[in-house]
Amino acid sequence: MRENELLQHIYAASRALPESVVIGPGDDMGALAIGGQTVLVTVDQVVDGVHVNTATTPIERVGRKAIVRNLSDVAAMAALPCGAVAAACLPSDFGAERARALFDAMRQTAERYGCPLIGGDVSVWGGKLLLTVTVFAEPAGVEPVLRSGAIINDGIYVTGELGGAWDEQGGGPHLDAEPRIALARTLAEDPAVGLHAMIDLSDGLATDLGHICERSGVGAVIDEAAIPCRRGGGAAAALSDGEDYELCFTAAGVVPESVDGVPIARIGHVVAANDGAPVVMRGKDGSAKPLAACGWEHRGE
Amino acid sequence: MRENELLQHIYAASRALPESVVIGPGDDMGALAIGGQTVLVTVDQVVDGVHVNTATTPIERVGRKAIVRNLSDVAAMAALPCGAVAAACLPSDFGAERARALFDAMRQTAERYGCPLIGGDVSVWGGKLLLTVTVFAEPAGVEPVLRSGAIINDGIYVTGELGGAWDEQGGGPHLDAEPRIALARTLAEDPAVGLHAMIDLSDGLATDLGHICERSGVGAVIDEAAIPCRRGGGAAAALSDGEDYELCFTAAGVVPESVDGVPIARIGHVVAANDGAPVVMRGKDGSAKPLAACGWEHRGE
Repeated sequence: MRENELLQHIYAASRALPESVVIGPGDDMGALAIGGQTVLVTVDQVVDGVHVNTATTPIERVGRKAIVRNLSDVAAMAALPCGAVAAACLPSDFGAERARALFDAMRQTAERYGCPLIGGDVSVWGGKLLLTVTVFAEPAGVEPVLRSGAIINDGIYVTGELGGAWDEQGGGPHLDAEPRIALARTLAEDPAVGLHAMIDLSDGLATDLGHICERSGVGAVIDEAAIPCRRGGGAAAALSDGEDYELCFTAAGVVPESVDGVPIARIGHVVAANDGAPVVMRGKDGSAKPLAACGWEHRGE
Repeated sequence: MRENELLQHIYAASRALPESVVIGPGDDMGALAIGGQTVLVTVDQVVDGVHVNTATTPIERVGRKAIVRNLSDVAAMAALPCGAVAAACLPSDFGAERARALFDAMRQTAERYGCPLIGGDVSVWGGKLLLTVTVFAEPAGVEPVLRSGAIINDGIYVTGELGGAWDEQGGGPHLDAEPRIALARTLAEDPAVGLHAMIDLSDGLATDLGHICERSGVGAVIDEAAIPCRRGGGAAAALSDGEDYELCFTAAGVVPESVDGVPIARIGHVVAANDGAPVVMRGKDGSAKPLAACGWEHRGE
């Protein structure tokens, strides 16, 4: 069974949600109207052997990643984080000191981004380490930016550098990812940018840009030469490696070349939906190559 | 390592939370002020082999339990559920049809209680089934009822029948638990009841009433003969079996004998904190027995 098939079933079943559901399943965060307040929510799991490797990665960095992975979803909505809860399944031989170090790292990382940890659930079991973090956010004056807002002729942009974020031992840049919260709000707050759609890059550019296309009913043409590849990697890595936790967005206006030192690259533009693959890449040799969603289907499947 | 030890560490580290945290870790739900709105949150895990047994329990009932377990926490605050997100780790041989049945059961159960499922995360892995559900709730005109509000001379009450909720094969009444949301709000809204403190019974009466005592800085004396034991069980089962998902509360006023057909039993009263065990049970033979927290430490530990 594939995750995506199940998610399609869940989305289909969610068409008749009550009016209090401001954003239903299928975006980086869902949102509810509670009282007069819009509250955004996201949940993500970090599984040992899939999203981290506890055999090679210090436990503090594992805890940091479990929080940052969710905060990257907050950035993708241009929202402001306001709190989190965490659930953990700890292996029975995990050790009390290591457990305290893990939770301290989660709490401190969350607090650094204005996101206090207000509750949790701990189980000890025979399996591997599993952390499930739920983060809440508020629009705080900025309309949430959806995956579904892309418009034909928008430019397509990505932040930072892509590909090679996960090395063979489970280390690498994915452990140092910075959630692009401030950057996203800077873009969303500037009407000259004309920000239309946004997603965070967790499964590889091909898959994640494909989600924007699918939800927006559009296609995308990107230029291989314009993709900001991490040193030592090529476009293939950027398209499919995943775990970058950068942003991909579409905008109709003038987009700065960087925000607070984070580079922003224009990699293509939005076109009408095509019948085959939603994303087409123009190669350095001039070829036009339709991209299958070839992103990172997480290793545990 | 024991869950409780780690939780104490987490609570201690949470003393300096920002003002937006209305209720910090250590109650049935945490709460945040988001905009002008108080939003309550709880997270709970359902682990195969610990909280359910998928070898003997239909998958629809597993999904139901994953939602109800959280809704029971909402009841314990006298709050109203308003939405949920769910994360799942599915075994690689789980099967697509079974996965769809599981999610349909979760979604339908949540909706029945006014709690639409607005997002999720699915992983497929080599381990056992694990479901993590986060539920949001709002006070909706009722001040959240904490564990910490018990006052000396309050009566101590429980709803329903306790003990024997989990049979040897993992079946039993825990699969049919009804979250006491309406009952809790009826009690909280009636000033004649004088509701002071409340908790839901998931770990056994001794442990959970012990939490009220600890958080309130009081002690409790309960009468063995007054405990509403499920047919075939005795006080020992009620004190320690767990998984009842009934409510235990303290109140200073007049408490009805039942609400909407659910019986409410007075089982004792609140006393000054004693040095030893917080809960003392008067036996049917007139003895006074201090109860260690002897509740259900979940089976996977």
